[in-house]
Amino acid sequence: MDYAALARESLAQVAATKPLIHQITNVVVTNDSANLTLGFGALPVMAYAPQEVAEMASISQALVLNIGTLSEEEIAAMLIAGQAAGEKGIPIVLDPVGAGATAFRTESALRLLRELPITVLRGNRGEIGALVGSGEVRGVEATGSEDPRAVAAAARDAFGVTVAVTGATDVIAGPERTYLVHNGSPLLAMITGSGCMATATIGIFNAVGDDGALQTALGLASYGVAAERAAAGNPGPGTFRSRLLDEVAALSTKGTEGVKIEVVRQ
Amino acid sequence: MDYAALARESLAQVAATKPLIHQITNVVVTNDSANLTLGFGALPVMAYAPQEVAEMASISQALVLNIGTLSEEEIAAMLIAGQAAGEKGIPIVLDPVGAGATAFRTESALRLLRELPITVLRGNRGEIGALVGSGEVRGVEATGSEDPRAVAAAARDAFGVTVAVTGATDVIAGPERTYLVHNGSPLLAMITGSGCMATATIGIFNAVGDDGALQTALGLASYGVAAERAAAGNPGPGTFRSRLLDEVAALSTKGTEGVKIEVVRQ
Amino acid sequence: MDYAALARESLAQVAATKPLIHQITNVVVTNDSANLTLGFGALPVMAYAPQEVAEMASISQALVLNIGTLSEEEIAAMLIAGQAAGEKGIPIVLDPVGAGATAFRTESALRLLRELPITVLRGNRGEIGALVGSGEVRGVEATGSEDPRAVAAAARDAFGVTVAVTGATDVIAGPERTYLVHNGSPLLAMITGSGCMATATIGIFNAVGDDGALQTALGLASYGVAAERAAAGNPGPGTFRSRLLDEVAALSTKGTEGVKIEVVRQ
Repeated sequence: MDYAALARESLAQVAATKPLIHQITNVVVTNDSANLTLGFGALPVMAYAPQEVAEMASISQALVLNIGTLSEEEIAAMLIAGQAAGEKGIPIVLDPVGAGATAFRTESALRLLRELPITVLRGNRGEIGALVGSGEVRGVEATGSEDPRAVAAAARDAFGVTVAVTGATDVIAGPERTYLVHNGSPLLAMITGSGCMATATIGIFNAVGDDGALQTALGLASYGVAAERAAAGNPGPGTFRSRLLDEVAALSTKGTEGVKIEVVRQ
Repeated sequence: MDYAALARESLAQVAATKPLIHQITNVVVTNDSANLTLGFGALPVMAYAPQEVAEMASISQALVLNIGTLSEEEIAAMLIAGQAAGEKGIPIVLDPVGAGATAFRTESALRLLRELPITVLRGNRGEIGALVGSGEVRGVEATGSEDPRAVAAAARDAFGVTVAVTGATDVIAGPERTYLVHNGSPLLAMITGSGCMATATIGIFNAVGDDGALQTALGLASYGVAAERAAAGNPGPGTFRSRLLDEVAALSTKGTEGVKIEVVRQ
Repeated sequence: MDYAALARESLAQVAATKPLIHQITNVVVTNDSANLTLGFGALPVMAYAPQEVAEMASISQALVLNIGTLSEEEIAAMLIAGQAAGEKGIPIVLDPVGAGATAFRTESALRLLRELPITVLRGNRGEIGALVGSGEVRGVEATGSEDPRAVAAAARDAFGVTVAVTGATDVIAGPERTYLVHNGSPLLAMITGSGCMATATIGIFNAVGDDGALQTALGLASYGVAAERAAAGNPGPGTFRSRLLDEVAALSTKGTEGVKIEVVRQ
């Protein structure tokens, strides 16, 4: 498959249709996530109030849920938004930030997985591992040494959703295929919210295509290619953060050459 | 009128008096908005708790209300703060982010307009249009095609406040004059919160002058000039975002040449 | 004492142990603070929910409390987290942002000081002064003219904690020694959250050493050296903000030469 071409097509469709991406996300990354969404050519909207999330989710093309700074009220809003999205068949992406670090996070993530028709679950190895009963997490960083492919497959089978375990190599375990994405930069680990932005990217790409695993792979690879370009010259993290946004926005003109996606056996 | 000179005078007065700008704003733009306020030489303070907003608003020189990530509690705090500001004659600027996208946003904005002595209402064409019963909004982005001058005039007449409809050309409909501001850059649409920052700018300029419409025009034109300078060389959005703050801070030394303000008939 | 060497050792220990820094901080600075923490080589975690803060604080190596956008619920969460940290002997740093500006802020800060085993209290002259009954604050900026050494000593004696009063010269009043730190840049005052980031830095350095006053001085001096390097060429505040993060991350390779710490009599 010419994945670079597929990624380019998805980007073109984002630019043409400007999908609205409703994000209920954490306070750390909200600005970066909104800017990333604009950079990809989509429209971000952050809305959290229980009075409006069903309405907002219903007019969106994807819903992104991120528990990075969760509260009881926010989980309640996510359930309302997710139900509305589910009724309309709008894809829902869940980022269980810090699952495993506290019981509240683990249980909240599991509750969202149980009660909502999640399309894609994305986390690091430790977070996803925690949800399937393994993994080690310190705060919101993975520190364990599990095989990410095994973790992704276990979570896919346990929850019946497409699972993306991101890291040096991203693993996307879908119902029919498992993709490996070999893009990205170690500098991503130097900035906060790089995982949350990967999740937002997955939401954007799932807004313009039905094959959840494939769209996730295309999104993560495109984001990774932008990160590789932003990392040229090995800038400091502050400069890298600005350039990452520049390079995401430049994907539509610079193209997606360099996308490295591999399909592996289940 | 020599608007560049008037803008310079307002900037000089901001620098001399360091007005305190109390902002109850959304979580997406709070950092950018605070940095912008410092860049203009004013002092930002973000305070949301019902226990303190009256006190904080009372010692401020302008109050900026922004419903971008509104909640019931935040609207309640805005009402308390706005009442305190109103009693002291402190200018209040309202940004009805996403009005029209959900009933909760539209109704909350209308409630603030009804219950508080708002000085300036700023939004895009879709948001302001939604408040007067027209307009089309997707999330927080305007997509309709109404004439911004008609929308601004309709809102001014409906609510009895000065109305700024920002876009490629900004329209400021005041009680006696309507101003058009021909500054800015398309790159502003590439970063989140550029409208919210325009609103904060309006608050800052209204802290140092009594003619609400004129101060709004001067503020938007100054902000627009900074954006034009930041857009030189057509940087990516990440770089543009940093430079915009640089150029706002540099207005006091580089001056305000390039301000393009036009007065039109009502 | 070779303070540059001590600072370097602390940085090396941060890199080696990757301490988890639990931060309950304000919405303005949360992204910058998380990025700064990563820049120093530590792991940030922002967690606010009463259901999880005790658990999160217990697995952390430092707890940073910042009342910049406080609410009743957040203060309650801080008390839970602080109690858990106290039971484990985990250092707690408190930033009483805006104390003096409103009674709610002053009283909340005093309550935290009274009920929690705070290790280091950091604020500007106005904030710390307000807590000991002097000082003048406008919003969250100090405007008074008290001698920062007198203010720091008064607060240390009143609350029995190490006190850092930051400004052109930082004063750290510890139980046995008072340190002066002569690093930093006027550009820090041009960006929001520079004080909050100083507080986060104090948390990081106290995670890897027991002498609270010394670690605070080393942290502030290191942060100040990074700011000096970032200020080279006198960039605008937007560029400075990115470079500051670059230079914090570069401390481990560029070293800490330039650290200027002075011990003075009590």
